[in-house]
Amino acid sequence: MRDPLSKKVQSIEPSGIRKFFDIVSEMKDAISLGVGEPDFDTPWHIREEGIYSLEQGRTFYTSNAGLKELKEEIANYLKRRFQLSYDPVGEIYLTVGGSEAIDGALRAMLDPGDEVLLPQPSYVSYEPCIVLADGVPKIIELKEEDQFKLKKQQLLDAITDKTKILIMPFPNNPTGAIMTREDLEDIAEVVREHDMYVISDEIYSELTYSGDHVSIASLPGMQERTIVINGFSKSYAMTGWRLGYACGPKPIIKQMLKIHQFAIMCAPTLSQYAAISAVRDGDDDVERMRTAYNQRRNFLMKAFRDMGLKCFEPFGAFYVFPCIKEFGMTSDEFATKLLQEEKVAVVPGTAFGRCGEGFLRISYAYSINDLKVALGRIESFIQRHRK
Amino acid sequence: MRDPLSKKVQSIEPSGIRKFFDIVSEMKDAISLGVGEPDFDTPWHIREEGIYSLEQGRTFYTSNAGLKELKEEIANYLKRRFQLSYDPVGEIYLTVGGSEAIDGALRAMLDPGDEVLLPQPSYVSYEPCIVLADGVPKIIELKEEDQFKLKKQQLLDAITDKTKILIMPFPNNPTGAIMTREDLEDIAEVVREHDMYVISDEIYSELTYSGDHVSIASLPGMQERTIVINGFSKSYAMTGWRLGYACGPKPIIKQMLKIHQFAIMCAPTLSQYAAISAVRDGDDDVERMRTAYNQRRNFLMKAFRDMGLKCFEPFGAFYVFPCIKEFGMTSDEFATKLLQEEKVAVVPGTAFGRCGEGFLRISYAYSINDLKVALGRIESFIQRHRK
Repeated sequence: MRDPLSKKVQSIEPSGIRKFFDIVSEMKDAISLGVGEPDFDTPWHIREEGIYSLEQGRTFYTSNAGLKELKEEIANYLKRRFQLSYDPVGEIYLTVGGSEAIDGALRAMLDPGDEVLLPQPSYVSYEPCIVLADGVPKIIELKEEDQFKLKKQQLLDAITDKTKILIMPFPNNPTGAIMTREDLEDIAEVVREHDMYVISDEIYSELTYSGDHVSIASLPGMQERTIVINGFSKSYAMTGWRLGYACGPKPIIKQMLKIHQFAIMCAPTLSQYAAISAVRDGDDDVERMRTAYNQRRNFLMKAFRDMGLKCFEPFGAFYVFPCIKEFGMTSDEFATKLLQEEKVAVVPGTAFGRCGEGFLRISYAYSINDLKVALGRIESFIQRHRK
Repeated sequence: MRDPLSKKVQSIEPSGIRKFFDIVSEMKDAISLGVGEPDFDTPWHIREEGIYSLEQGRTFYTSNAGLKELKEEIANYLKRRFQLSYDPVGEIYLTVGGSEAIDGALRAMLDPGDEVLLPQPSYVSYEPCIVLADGVPKIIELKEEDQFKLKKQQLLDAITDKTKILIMPFPNNPTGAIMTREDLEDIAEVVREHDMYVISDEIYSELTYSGDHVSIASLPGMQERTIVINGFSKSYAMTGWRLGYACGPKPIIKQMLKIHQFAIMCAPTLSQYAAISAVRDGDDDVERMRTAYNQRRNFLMKAFRDMGLKCFEPFGAFYVFPCIKEFGMTSDEFATKLLQEEKVAVVPGTAFGRCGEGFLRISYAYSINDLKVALGRIESFIQRHRK
């Protein structure tokens, strides 16, 4: 029999995140600080809206773009929170989480050979989705001494005459880095001057701890060249509902929606109804969870300082990204040994790009109690292995 | 500003189904016989399982492939209903409806220039998804005199040395055609001899009215070269839940799952829990809905005979596909006039391929009362326009 498979797809590596969790799930007393999802249940009023929708029999397709009422509420929300103005008709549509929106934006915009600038460390999906869409990923290696921000000169150095899109993954998974308005202005200037487009993944936009998130699309001349991706998974603890959205210029959204129509049909109906309640009445929930994450963040940063583990202070998302270069192990070796010896699972920084070597991603979307136990184990581990 | 869009994506036409429904939704007293989804609410015990899951806080990601328990139940179901044997670990994964599985299978299997044989009339997504995956669609025009079945000679005539995949869209949307075991044996022989693969979209497998559906994957030597796509939307009236699945050889499912991992993450969690109840305890619901569809089908066929409208008798799905060639109008003209003059919306056959010209798709996933009123209007229309 001949090979049934696409060469391109075979060439893509599977995600390096899951490997450890297959081991963890078989290991007694293991603690995972690895998964990138909130530990909170979805707030009750949102689940209640889901229950009501099931009772009412809202089990049919919605239109391809999603419920009109939800799109309107999202438009209100984006205006209120991030000073973004989108027309609910034609500039917003609902997706299966942020994931589908990333894939859809790249498929809608790339011709073969187009280059996409991709700052790393960053989320595991960007690079494979660029390759799947026949684009060429050009990695920009973010640096700890820059607080893992994207710097203007790095961007300028990476641009060629094939550059079409810049991916902006802030607040960042895995580093927790954010970009301030001033940081973004530097970047936006280059983007405009070089006539590029931006895919801005703002899925962690509600989880910042030093002032409100700024969307690059809100800067002058940027809305017309930016696709903003956001969703409900992280802000409202709604990962399993699989609901995100993309906003952007009508001609681009129209093409993304065409792919969505054929390859997905519509986002889950029940999730859409429940999300109306999230985006309309969920500000207090977001605030409550943000406060909890911030306490844990402070707790971790203090613990790292106490044990002398070097760690850049992150102001976004729910990850810390400590440096483990002093131990003379690769990230993968460190994470593997930590799991074997102390039964604590974390993710090697290299899962998020080669330049993540020497770092670990530790999620603090876990209870303070779990974090305390895990930190005790990490402390014994590093004392034993410190040179 | 430069063009932000992919040339390939721009070249794809949007679906022709929706056009009429934008008009219908603005038109008072209009009746639509157009949408391809069950008119039943999801059965209560399935919704109840969804409600219970929300109460329990099952709002987190599942593994990429989906819940183990659901995959096991699906394996049991496929064995029990269609004599198919799949390993729940590695040969089955959960998708966002059948749609994502179609897109995923083509992306995982096609290299640029590979030819895909596509029988038409058929569902609107296949052709654009082939193009999106860099394949070349080769249309096989199914004929009314063949009862819209795929015939061995047509298949042989379409094969070239670039042919890689055959799409098998049976039970068929829009014609309602089915393929019997004998019909499929003819096709399977050619597929094996020419070392091809099959993507078999069996989403309507529970809706057949002349004996049980036969899966081409259950024929000798075919499971290893077939991806079976199925789901919950049509059988259990669960369209809005967005849940389907793909089954096939491990090496192919592995690559499909990789795309799924990056572009989707996982199917909606709540839908997965509810679907366990559907597949485990839903046989009676399926039987009840099948009986209702069959009554409507018989009612429509009799009404068409009475008004002298030529119509092939369909034995699957929930569509009839009458021929309107005698009226000297194109399908699009006929459907447009019928909507304007009688306020009845149907879909022109050409929405499903050029060879649908001269036919209409009429869905009978509507109550007998709606069907009666609509048929009265159709009758006045054709009497007025008959030559």
